[in-house]
Amino acid sequence: MIGYPNKKKQATKTVSYAKLGMTLESDIDQTNKYYLEQGIAVIHKKPTPVQVVTVNYPARNKAKITEAYYKIPSTTDYNGIYEGRYIDFDAKETALATSMPLKNIHPHQVDHLKAVHEQGGIAFLIVHFKRIQTYYLLPATVLFRYWDTRNEKTGRKSIPLSVFENEAFELNFSYQPRLDYLKVVKAHLMSD
Amino acid sequence: MIGYPNKKKQATKTVSYAKLGMTLESDIDQTNKYYLEQGIAVIHKKPTPVQVVTVNYPARNKAKITEAYYKIPSTTDYNGIYEGRYIDFDAKETALATSMPLKNIHPHQVDHLKAVHEQGGIAFLIVHFKRIQTYYLLPATVLFRYWDTRNEKTGRKSIPLSVFENEAFELNFSYQPRLDYLKVVKAHLMSD
Repeated sequence: MIGYPNKKKQATKTVSYAKLGMTLESDIDQTNKYYLEQGIAVIHKKPTPVQVVTVNYPARNKAKITEAYYKIPSTTDYNGIYEGRYIDFDAKETALATSMPLKNIHPHQVDHLKAVHEQGGIAFLIVHFKRIQTYYLLPATVLFRYWDTRNEKTGRKSIPLSVFENEAFELNFSYQPRLDYLKVVKAHLMSD
Repeated sequence: MIGYPNKKKQATKTVSYAKLGMTLESDIDQTNKYYLEQGIAVIHKKPTPVQVVTVNYPARNKAKITEAYYKIPSTTDYNGIYEGRYIDFDAKETALATSMPLKNIHPHQVDHLKAVHEQGGIAFLIVHFKRIQTYYLLPATVLFRYWDTRNEKTGRKSIPLSVFENEAFELNFSYQPRLDYLKVVKAHLMSD
């Protein structure tokens, strides 16, 4: 069970509309909504897993959860289908200017991406470098290489920005869709 | 927001182990776990969506949800990948002996299955007729035919058992995996 410091603000209905388009999650949600409405792809964010402890029933057919905790997700946040291919990814943000720390990723998320890759699915990360306002699609195979060697003597605890520049694909931010990651998938990952 | 009458029992940690293997959800979870461990497929149940209203922070990094409600899912409960193909389904139980009521299915779940089918995914329902202890895999195309005509003069509000007998595929219940639905998918749905 883990804490999400900003969850209260996000979950209540008092979120200002000005905030839309200002978080990676909402940008990806908006992109997926566009894909769905245009018949391009069916990709959804999975609900945040919650461990429910107590439920009250103040009225018939009305369940009120009064004690629950966030759980660590056992898979990635996003999956779906695009032109017959299974798509699976997670979204990560980093405040660092020159690398993405591998501790941003849960070990079971990497296990999941590996299992997906072995089944022939298209697996990747969308990574937002906040400091330089740059978005990359990082193929999971590049992640695996850094992940599997992270505890070796010559290994690194992060993936350098230069690796993103050379082996990932930059995503341009635009109005509609916000982050057209399937354009990159089609151009570079569909022949996997 | 909807109520799940049995959710309290399911969600707390007081569930007896004797209950395992006695619900459709746990039988499918066990089957998916088997598929994952054997490297056969990567298929997971999505978390139940919860609308979080209030979160307290009794301690640092410890978020306690104190007010939340169950939401109606916008997709089906299960999806994943099997031999490169996208798999998407929902599980339904009926206490009726001779038909499955269409009201057991949310309209947006049908919309989702249609969108998946159009993208080339393999879409279906697993239906448990509790009275006769029989399990069927119903191809989504059969569901669509009944769904799309349900409000017509000659339409029906349910899918008769005879249709399951003729157009669905019976799943045998066994020890491991409990409900080998991918065997049916491979034999009958992979050439779609």
